[in-house]
Amino acid sequence: MSKKNLLVGQSGGPTAVINSSLYGVVSEGLSHPETIGHVYGMVNGIEGFLNGTTLDFEKALPGEKLSYLKHTPGAYLGSCRYKLPESLEDPVYPLLFRKFEEMNIGWFFYIGGNDSMDTVSKLSRYAASIGSDIRVIGEPKTIDNDLVHTDHTPGFGSAAKYVASTVREIILDANVYEKKSVTIVEIMGRHAGWLTAASALARKYPGDNPLFIYLPEVAFDTKEFLSNVEKAFRKNCNVIVCVSEGIHDAKGTFICEYDNSVGTDSFGHKMLAGCGKYLENLVRTRLGVKARSIELNVSQRCSSSMLSATDQQEAVAAGVFGVKAALDGVTGMMVSFIREQNPDGSYKMTCGLEDVNAICNAEKPVPLEWITDNGSNISDDFLAYAAPLIQGRVDVPLGEDGLPVFVYRK
Amino acid sequence: MSKKNLLVGQSGGPTAVINSSLYGVVSEGLSHPETIGHVYGMVNGIEGFLNGTTLDFEKALPGEKLSYLKHTPGAYLGSCRYKLPESLEDPVYPLLFRKFEEMNIGWFFYIGGNDSMDTVSKLSRYAASIGSDIRVIGEPKTIDNDLVHTDHTPGFGSAAKYVASTVREIILDANVYEKKSVTIVEIMGRHAGWLTAASALARKYPGDNPLFIYLPEVAFDTKEFLSNVEKAFRKNCNVIVCVSEGIHDAKGTFICEYDNSVGTDSFGHKMLAGCGKYLENLVRTRLGVKARSIELNVSQRCSSSMLSATDQQEAVAAGVFGVKAALDGVTGMMVSFIREQNPDGSYKMTCGLEDVNAICNAEKPVPLEWITDNGSNISDDFLAYAAPLIQGRVDVPLGEDGLPVFVYRK
Repeated sequence: MSKKNLLVGQSGGPTAVINSSLYGVVSEGLSHPETIGHVYGMVNGIEGFLNGTTLDFEKALPGEKLSYLKHTPGAYLGSCRYKLPESLEDPVYPLLFRKFEEMNIGWFFYIGGNDSMDTVSKLSRYAASIGSDIRVIGEPKTIDNDLVHTDHTPGFGSAAKYVASTVREIILDANVYEKKSVTIVEIMGRHAGWLTAASALARKYPGDNPLFIYLPEVAFDTKEFLSNVEKAFRKNCNVIVCVSEGIHDAKGTFICEYDNSVGTDSFGHKMLAGCGKYLENLVRTRLGVKARSIELNVSQRCSSSMLSATDQQEAVAAGVFGVKAALDGVTGMMVSFIREQNPDGSYKMTCGLEDVNAICNAEKPVPLEWITDNGSNISDDFLAYAAPLIQGRVDVPLGEDGLPVFVYRK
Repeated sequence: MSKKNLLVGQSGGPTAVINSSLYGVVSEGLSHPETIGHVYGMVNGIEGFLNGTTLDFEKALPGEKLSYLKHTPGAYLGSCRYKLPESLEDPVYPLLFRKFEEMNIGWFFYIGGNDSMDTVSKLSRYAASIGSDIRVIGEPKTIDNDLVHTDHTPGFGSAAKYVASTVREIILDANVYEKKSVTIVEIMGRHAGWLTAASALARKYPGDNPLFIYLPEVAFDTKEFLSNVEKAFRKNCNVIVCVSEGIHDAKGTFICEYDNSVGTDSFGHKMLAGCGKYLENLVRTRLGVKARSIELNVSQRCSSSMLSATDQQEAVAAGVFGVKAALDGVTGMMVSFIREQNPDGSYKMTCGLEDVNAICNAEKPVPLEWITDNGSNISDDFLAYAAPLIQGRVDVPLGEDGLPVFVYRK
């Protein structure tokens, strides 16, 4: 049997370790020269592939350079937000498989969130329908941690560590002045509050800030919020509140939409401001205290400064596991994480495989029983769940310029 | 002669290394037990001291704990924004000196920016006027790097490193998609553009993003800005622009004020949005491309993740040097940094002393000859100036929870 080639792509928003999964796939792919010919990357996902942009990893990242993927944020291969047509009769499918054939692809890996698993589902189903033996495997990735049938997702641990450490620093910063103040920290996660919940890890002792944490899993009430903050001032001078960008009221209206009805810019267009900015203004106006808001923004998904070694290692492991499974003939599956325990009770993770069709159009919210204090706090169960995922330091190499060295396509 | 006590305070906004300067003062103070009795800290600066809040470092941070100050951001002692009255006849001066006497203070150190140097100036002049032999020394601190008569200030190097590395990561994040996009990064510095200029250090090769950098030292023109971005799209898909929060037009109107005339919240109050948000909306509206803005916010001054070892060591050195100078009888001076060269031409810094009166009411802007391309870029002279200041890694210890361990007053 002649050798076939491996193809890997990335899709959706980047994370701090999406390139670690890529490293896992590529390094494992290169370690089977008896079976796998070339290891190719598709540039800018399926969309870029349709435009014919690919690269050969042995040329693009020769030798040691490949390992730099493990601490390079962003998506080395570039990404896309492209949804394949629902109908497998669409001409894009034969086009794609003709291209796969031209490149003699035997195995295809797609690293991404649930939209990317939708792509894996469609390609594997189409392959089956035409009797192609291309193996298609999904590699999980999302800071949102909202994929079902997996204990957690690569990318969440590092994002959670970034959120927790940054909020801990913001608390120190806020505590500098002895004047009543409220700091609103807006955290990514439109539908699932996992990352916002991670701000609870910032607490140095019971009762420490952040005093309130609001997730999108439950309705947000501005009156109750203001009342909570006022009560907190009895004991605390500086109140830190962490909110998910997706908090909404009982009617389902996003808090960040409250202002859009009035905030228009000079051209008559709606000003888009986050819920943090809205709540900052609300607090200043209604409570008459110093208020500020901080949107943690894209650093949550692209900071290399707070990489979790656990997250990084697991992302690599998922990549490696996926290649091994594909070589064993598996297809149409996503690599999942199963939480186990070492004999001493400590955290241990093993990889599993789940049908992508069960994953691609579902979202896993934070369990309601982990949301406490009438929707304003997080239980210790969450802390026990999340704490192992942020462990371990990754020292990103610094270059002569004193800054982190990353690899990139020029 | 009986022993006297040392007193130290912090004032103004925190930096990543203001506690390193504190460490320098306290550790050097404790190493002179033959001369110095207790080493006291004033909590919340002069304002807190007037309310009687002080601590004894040997009790507050015994043994090894003191060294944790070196990687703890924020201001361990707390801060204040309190300006002493101009008239030395004001009753606050005898009140302060009575308190100094009650605590048997022989040396007082104030760590801060130019407002704090104003305090040092007034206290040292008042001391001279009443024949007090209390020595008063200013320890420089500001991420803005705008103090005169010093090559640079402690706090700038770490903030610059944070800005450069974060912008480098934002560039990776932006390059993920192949769709025209503009990312506006808003950086601290209302009057001086040093920190915004540091974004130029993020470039990995000539011509890399950020393609445009705008400082408050020169007038900003929105039309020219839009025209620059449009031209840049001919060669670049993703355009990153770094702007100082204090950019203003030729008339002196801040760009962040442009929107205030229209953006009001639900209560009729002006929405305060930064210039980044304004420019984001401008780009989206006028150029019809994807636009986003990122305000780096307080992490610039309180992130421990990108501490510059050079900055940290210099901050400690400034603290130590100040104590030695005060023990030698110096008063009314600020510790300054003098740039020198090692025999091999490499960067070397030594400490000096400057009259606080020459410092306290002046600001040092970025030299106009370092601002190039009609106000949209930074010269290599700046890069040569700033590069040595961001060198070296500081590994912040991680605790059992996987997060940085900081010291704090409870």
